Amino acid sequence: MRKGEPILIVGSVALDNVKTPFGEVKDALGGAAVYSSIAASYFAPVRLVGVVGDDFPQKHVSFLSSRNVDLAGLQRMHGQTFRWSGFYEFDLNQAHTLDTQLNVFASFKPEIPEAYRDSKYVFLANIDPELQLQVLEQVRSPKLAICDTMNYWIENKRDALLQVLKRVDVAFMNDSEARQLCGIHSLVRAARQMIELGPRVVIIKKGEHGAIMVSNGTYFSAPCYPLEEVKDPTGAGDSFAGGFIGYVASTDDVSEGNLRKATIYGSTLASFNVQDFSLRRLSSLKPEEIAGRYCEFKQIAHFEDLG
Amino acid sequence: MRKGEPILIVGSVALDNVKTPFGEVKDALGGAAVYSSIAASYFAPVRLVGVVGDDFPQKHVSFLSSRNVDLAGLQRMHGQTFRWSGFYEFDLNQAHTLDTQLNVFASFKPEIPEAYRDSKYVFLANIDPELQLQVLEQVRSPKLAICDTMNYWIENKRDALLQVLKRVDVAFMNDSEARQLCGIHSLVRAARQMIELGPRVVIIKKGEHGAIMVSNGTYFSAPCYPLEEVKDPTGAGDSFAGGFIGYVASTDDVSEGNLRKATIYGSTLASFNVQDFSLRRLSSLKPEEIAGRYCEFKQIAHFEDLG
Repeated sequence: MRKGEPILIVGSVALDNVKTPFGEVKDALGGAAVYSSIAASYFAPVRLVGVVGDDFPQKHVSFLSSRNVDLAGLQRMHGQTFRWSGFYEFDLNQAHTLDTQLNVFASFKPEIPEAYRDSKYVFLANIDPELQLQVLEQVRSPKLAICDTMNYWIENKRDALLQVLKRVDVAFMNDSEARQLCGIHSLVRAARQMIELGPRVVIIKKGEHGAIMVSNGTYFSAPCYPLEEVKDPTGAGDSFAGGFIGYVASTDDVSEGNLRKATIYGSTLASFNVQDFSLRRLSSLKPEEIAGRYCEFKQIAHFEDLG
Repeated sequence: MRKGEPILIVGSVALDNVKTPFGEVKDALGGAAVYSSIAASYFAPVRLVGVVGDDFPQKHVSFLSSRNVDLAGLQRMHGQTFRWSGFYEFDLNQAHTLDTQLNVFASFKPEIPEAYRDSKYVFLANIDPELQLQVLEQVRSPKLAICDTMNYWIENKRDALLQVLKRVDVAFMNDSEARQLCGIHSLVRAARQMIELGPRVVIIKKGEHGAIMVSNGTYFSAPCYPLEEVKDPTGAGDSFAGGFIGYVASTDDVSEGNLRKATIYGSTLASFNVQDFSLRRLSSLKPEEIAGRYCEFKQIAHFEDLG
């Protein structure tokens, strides 16, 4: 592991307050770029571009470095780090935001260090699509560029988001975002409509129902791991993304068949992530745990080998 | 096909009025026993036990007979046939009942003909669990007994339903019913809790998200077929049940591995059923269409063979 091609990840670095029926954390390390970087770091070297304020604890910097996450692109600005406070009800499906303080993130302009611009694998985590476009302007010709987004940008920056979709290879959305973007209920039709907008592959994350991956003419349904207890869903989508791009970079193979395996590695990392708060579970994984759960996914989905 | 062990199916025979955003039908052949019998008839001989009134059209009797559904157990009573009227909104997930007229079904007492009592495969479609118990009293020792149910019985006949669950091998529920019965949100935990109540296997149907099959220590996630258009979801669960028990009876194999394949055959029949109103699509299937879609399911779920 971690022998693959380096991955450029751009997105938020945050300090989170999260409460669920199973506990709570305050000032916990979070943010889309952090969750995805840690997940990806099990597979390949990561180059993180984001921003933090003066209050960002050194222990988090040390932790990220210890996971071989390169921080040459992490900007330090005067002010407070981006903070999110939210809670989840018993069904854990929907995050309820109590407070968002953009702080230094409000004036974030992604500057991709020269040494990062040749990255073959690029993940544009959930940020303003105009910033995602700025990243795409700065990288040379990635072999696989992936974007994620959220309902806020679908509502408020639709045109920029459509520009991003035109230029990426893979788009991630969750089910409600896909329905919102396309204005139709059927996820299969929504995914096929998104393919028309640009990406070669669309992956729709369905939480407890797994994920679907749609490309031109193919359809893959990935099962969800049968967790009996989810403690904190924060970062599930981001750790999915990290596991996905991490596996692809580690194999340097963007074929449809390999992207299916990557979807299962993404599901694997996401399933671990939600078993504890913040990055507790994700920061202490052993490679054999990842391999073991991937095998469980094979068992879970299996009914007959292909003839 | 149709070479398997005979299957006893007990449940409703109905005349339905159904409206969806894609059209409507009036006085259409329906009922849980009918949908499941027609689906099962592609795999094995079916023995249907139910009741109809004087108004039940002879053409429906002829159609069922033409599908090799044995009607020696179909009671004919003076009065009107059971009638259901309902509609679906655009999301097609939830049936809205406009009117239910039990009619002759209100006084239905299942009488299992002597020749049926040795049936190795028994499907108790959604009826009053007290009637399901009466059926179980009359059959000798089925190799596989399966029950289905609905929210109304969970609310109003919980004790009788728990008695049924104690005595069947396989229980089918949809996701909301499983959550309602067990009072917990997690479907995996609900399924495992139901296993404690009696059945060896629990199958939870999740509509557009496929199905999960849980037994003691195993977990199977069946994908859903990527239909872009669903015209009428009526009978989806029943045609799933029919395809499931039909395949098991045709192979006379109740191993966990074979029940997984049966889950896919159930999903196959359900996916055809919802593509048109009433039994239109289900009544004109070709065996090669069933085999073809089963193969598509293998492609849809495949990411790596078991090692």
